[in-house]
Amino acid sequence: MNHKLLYLSKYEVAKVGVTMADTIDIIERAFIEMGNNNVEMPPKPAIHPGDNGDNFIHAMPAYIPAMRSAGIKWISGYPDNQKKGLPYIMGLLILNDTETGLPLAVMDCSWITAMRTGAASAVSAKYLARKESSKIGIIACGVQGHTNLEAMSVLFPLKKVMAFDPNREQSKKLASYASTKLGIEVEIVDEPKKAVTGCDIVVTSGPILKQPHETIKAGWVDEGTFISCVDFDSFFSREAFNQASKWTTDNIAQYNHYKENLGYFQNCPDIYAELGELVTGRKVGRENNKEINFAANLGLAMEDMALAPLVYKKASEKGIGVWLEL
Amino acid sequence: MNHKLLYLSKYEVAKVGVTMADTIDIIERAFIEMGNNNVEMPPKPAIHPGDNGDNFIHAMPAYIPAMRSAGIKWISGYPDNQKKGLPYIMGLLILNDTETGLPLAVMDCSWITAMRTGAASAVSAKYLARKESSKIGIIACGVQGHTNLEAMSVLFPLKKVMAFDPNREQSKKLASYASTKLGIEVEIVDEPKKAVTGCDIVVTSGPILKQPHETIKAGWVDEGTFISCVDFDSFFSREAFNQASKWTTDNIAQYNHYKENLGYFQNCPDIYAELGELVTGRKVGRENNKEINFAANLGLAMEDMALAPLVYKKASEKGIGVWLEL
Repeated sequence: MNHKLLYLSKYEVAKVGVTMADTIDIIERAFIEMGNNNVEMPPKPAIHPGDNGDNFIHAMPAYIPAMRSAGIKWISGYPDNQKKGLPYIMGLLILNDTETGLPLAVMDCSWITAMRTGAASAVSAKYLARKESSKIGIIACGVQGHTNLEAMSVLFPLKKVMAFDPNREQSKKLASYASTKLGIEVEIVDEPKKAVTGCDIVVTSGPILKQPHETIKAGWVDEGTFISCVDFDSFFSREAFNQASKWTTDNIAQYNHYKENLGYFQNCPDIYAELGELVTGRKVGRENNKEINFAANLGLAMEDMALAPLVYKKASEKGIGVWLEL
Repeated sequence: MNHKLLYLSKYEVAKVGVTMADTIDIIERAFIEMGNNNVEMPPKPAIHPGDNGDNFIHAMPAYIPAMRSAGIKWISGYPDNQKKGLPYIMGLLILNDTETGLPLAVMDCSWITAMRTGAASAVSAKYLARKESSKIGIIACGVQGHTNLEAMSVLFPLKKVMAFDPNREQSKKLASYASTKLGIEVEIVDEPKKAVTGCDIVVTSGPILKQPHETIKAGWVDEGTFISCVDFDSFFSREAFNQASKWTTDNIAQYNHYKENLGYFQNCPDIYAELGELVTGRKVGRENNKEINFAANLGLAMEDMALAPLVYKKASEKGIGVWLEL
């Protein structure tokens, strides 16, 4: 046997150069497959090392026949890591050959996770936001604030970002990134309300909390706004959520699991559609300029597995990474 | 961040030099942890690439606090691979740091899977076979035939092997291995019955079949025998199984899943104990020289995760493998 495995570090995955436009396109195609019931994605089991009750390592397997993609993401979340100078979220992704089961690649999954999460918000926005959306509010300006902003900038004529973060240094980083890389003006604001009222799109991208702090109140969101809750239900009051015209998610089964077994999304609106239903036209998206529409996307294994083959292919072509004996 | 990940190929894992005696010791300790309810092992999800209905890739996560071991095995089974000159079973194991979640190692899992499966049979035998067992029947002489024989030879004063395989070349390989590596005489037999009747221990280690062929009939097994069914219920007739004094498994929950949802073990005896109950003394093992005792072990994620830290430690000490940037 003389097969080889490609290893890509965190730095190398990012260096491959898959663009956000490529990513959005692939993520939308993956949701079309899912909407047509052509994705195998079993429930994701977890282990919980340590005594603090908060650490987890999740297994996220998926198979997308049309993309010839099969594999798993094995991703950890350790809240105390940041005190140790380590990332909260880390992990590896294994991509397999669908024809033989052979592992083709092992890669760091940080970049893929950040990119596909932003891209999924943008795909939701494509169906649920106003096409002319130009003003975006970003609440929490970390990694997800960056990739969500980048993804929205691919699909919408963004002119202005209202950036809020409890840590002003984070807002400054986002401002610098937006002006130099995306050519979009950023106003750093010191109250969450200023990153909500008057915006066409709002992204809440802070930490996912078991106990929502419900900072954003009913009435802050204008008519016609689209909101992507990357932080689940952490930031909005229930009254504000219940202003939703259309409350959507990426996967109803997983959403119900989070709601019924894990305690998230209590007293949130009923689900109107999952994203696969919107992209396949089974459910209609935005119907007028007044709707306030939400996406509470959870992040799916099939998003990772949709993106991984492109990273593998481009890395192979460009000679990036380390080839290992099986 | 300047952490590194150790990669070990199939060849390198085997080269590390963890012995079968070490393996049996660790696997028994893992079952003690499990018997004391100190192991986290969620259900293992699978994906099924291809159209043939038989391919699978299984995710097997486990966390053993006492061994500071957390990780996952991602293992594929493709029946058609052998026609292509590829192994039926292949996969990778990821070992994580329990303190930070960081991946410590990625390694081929073929060697670990083979070794821990043999070791689990031997741990079952320690509690269920006669201590003076000296004659063993091996039915199907592939990888599992080899490691099961080696494991039994660590714990029992084996003098003679009765080896049956439909492919005589396989029996010859086992004979050569047993005489040169283990110093045990092998008689190659051309009927399964001759590898059953008159033996103290029998191992059936052929392929796992959805439709058992029930070759071994009631009355072939002598009083006092221990049988390890590595091939689940593929080889014995139901009448022969129902001669069992004690019918055991490694994990009752997983056994019931295989029985109720996947169709294995139909009309088999009721379970007397799982292995963790035997090794912790919660259930008594063999009580006399007449019992016919069975182990139908399924193979558990925690066995892999028990062995992986030792492979990682020894490989690090000996400078085996490739260190990769995270």
